[in-house]
Amino acid sequence: MDTPADTPAAVSSSSSPEEETPWLSAKEQQFWRAHLEVSHLLDYQLGRELQPHGLANNDYEILVVLSESPDRRMRMTDLATATLQSKSRLSHQITRMETAGLVLRQECPGDRRGLYAHLTEQGWEILQKVAPDHVRSVRHHFIDRFTPEQIETLHAALAPVAEHLRSLRGRS
Amino acid sequence: MDTPADTPAAVSSSSSPEEETPWLSAKEQQFWRAHLEVSHLLDYQLGRELQPHGLANNDYEILVVLSESPDRRMRMTDLATATLQSKSRLSHQITRMETAGLVLRQECPGDRRGLYAHLTEQGWEILQKVAPDHVRSVRHHFIDRFTPEQIETLHAALAPVAEHLRSLRGRS
Repeated sequence: MDTPADTPAAVSSSSSPEEETPWLSAKEQQFWRAHLEVSHLLDYQLGRELQPHGLANNDYEILVVLSESPDRRMRMTDLATATLQSKSRLSHQITRMETAGLVLRQECPGDRRGLYAHLTEQGWEILQKVAPDHVRSVRHHFIDRFTPEQIETLHAALAPVAEHLRSLRGRS
Repeated sequence: MDTPADTPAAVSSSSSPEEETPWLSAKEQQFWRAHLEVSHLLDYQLGRELQPHGLANNDYEILVVLSESPDRRMRMTDLATATLQSKSRLSHQITRMETAGLVLRQECPGDRRGLYAHLTEQGWEILQKVAPDHVRSVRHHFIDRFTPEQIETLHAALAPVAEHLRSLRGRS
């Protein structure tokens, strides 16, 4: 899929003089490309299927995160961390979602650490309306394409990697 | 990781009246979240490690795609398809990369179908310089965290899903 490949064929013959570059083997390269394809094309497809609901992937993600937070609200800085966005990008997105009536930005009385994003009643209702379609998309394009045994195996392989990557994010 | 979850806990009790929603089981949900975490956190981490080179993930992807194309160039519309971007978003990105001297936008004489993006000599050199570091990142955060057997199994499971998703994109 034409994603950040690590060993572009035309480059793999060059190596840094001081240290041999550990280029991927053909098998590793195939796997890496399959991972990137599934990762990016799945995001793309789920995004397309959210469009008729007037939502982008990021919007949906924010609705879910807020719906699962106490009082259906979260400090903007925490929401930025949770959704891997810069504060400025999140701020723009929340502005758009505020215009659409999905969330509300409010200062918390007595809390100087800044603004909170709140899920509105309308945002909550839209999430409830969209979630069934979204889970059908996730099943059709991903989950139902694996056997229960594959799901076990893949989860066992991915969970430690997720853990590693989470720990790095915490350190940032 | 607080990503587009499909079955927000608080929502899963509701179901559309006309049709039962096929919510994910606990196991499926765990696997889905692990997939999303690895997918998004890995992109995030690789992006952070490209930053010192002055590149974003998208920049690197475009350098790789162009480097693998005949004459190191590609029609803008094809490049947009290949990198899953809208034409307008790609156009903005190519403008930034042009300013950085990495690519060049040119009309092709005798081809009315529009503009091409060319990899410049400088873009090519930067890709050669960055690729060894990038492959080390990919190994450290992903590939080397699986056994050869896991890589076989994961690739066998993911390849048909990638194929399915590619076929959908073709249809768009």
